[in-house]
Amino acid sequence: MTNLAKTYEHPYYAVIFSSERTSGDHGYNMMAEKMVELASRQKGYLGVESARDDNLGITVSYWETLADITAWKANAAHQVAQRRGKEEWYSRFALRVCKVERNYLFEM
Amino acid sequence: MTNLAKTYEHPYYAVIFSSERTSGDHGYNMMAEKMVELASRQKGYLGVESARDDNLGITVSYWETLADITAWKANAAHQVAQRRGKEEWYSRFALRVCKVERNYLFEM
Repeated sequence: MTNLAKTYEHPYYAVIFSSERTSGDHGYNMMAEKMVELASRQKGYLGVESARDDNLGITVSYWETLADITAWKANAAHQVAQRRGKEEWYSRFALRVCKVERNYLFEM
Repeated sequence: MTNLAKTYEHPYYAVIFSSERTSGDHGYNMMAEKMVELASRQKGYLGVESARDDNLGITVSYWETLADITAWKANAAHQVAQRRGKEEWYSRFALRVCKVERNYLFEM
């Protein structure tokens, strides 16, 4: 479970990962938690936000540079998770790499 | 409820709206559906993805240009929803305007 990520002086980068799951867990939840923990120790990691309901899951991770995103994509344990994602966990997903140009935080 | 949005030849724009709710509905769900319907008729609208669990909600809307995002922000009915959002529905939220530089779609 995640809360709001911090906002930063822009620009920084966001990876929007939107997914539709297959049925059953197949070790998904444990791996998802592990990946968040592992990502948080990567160079350039700024934060992560995640929400899932019955229809769709959205995980947004935030990074200092595009090179940091490339390095995280190439991480060996993450590569294993990416492969299992395609084979077991996701029926469809979209991945979007974005440059955050403006951000705004509201707190009551 | 939304499914995956389409991917497009980049660049295009994404607005990532991440929020923590106050308790109770207070007309939120009806307004949220209405806003998605209204946004979908705006110029430059490309799609929306939304997921909410007990902790966090994430809605990402996709647009052709920054001007389209500005026009949607200024839409009169949307302005009413933005005001109620701050007064009633959200304890915290972050809004990030991003340029989508790369995207990838996986289908099983």
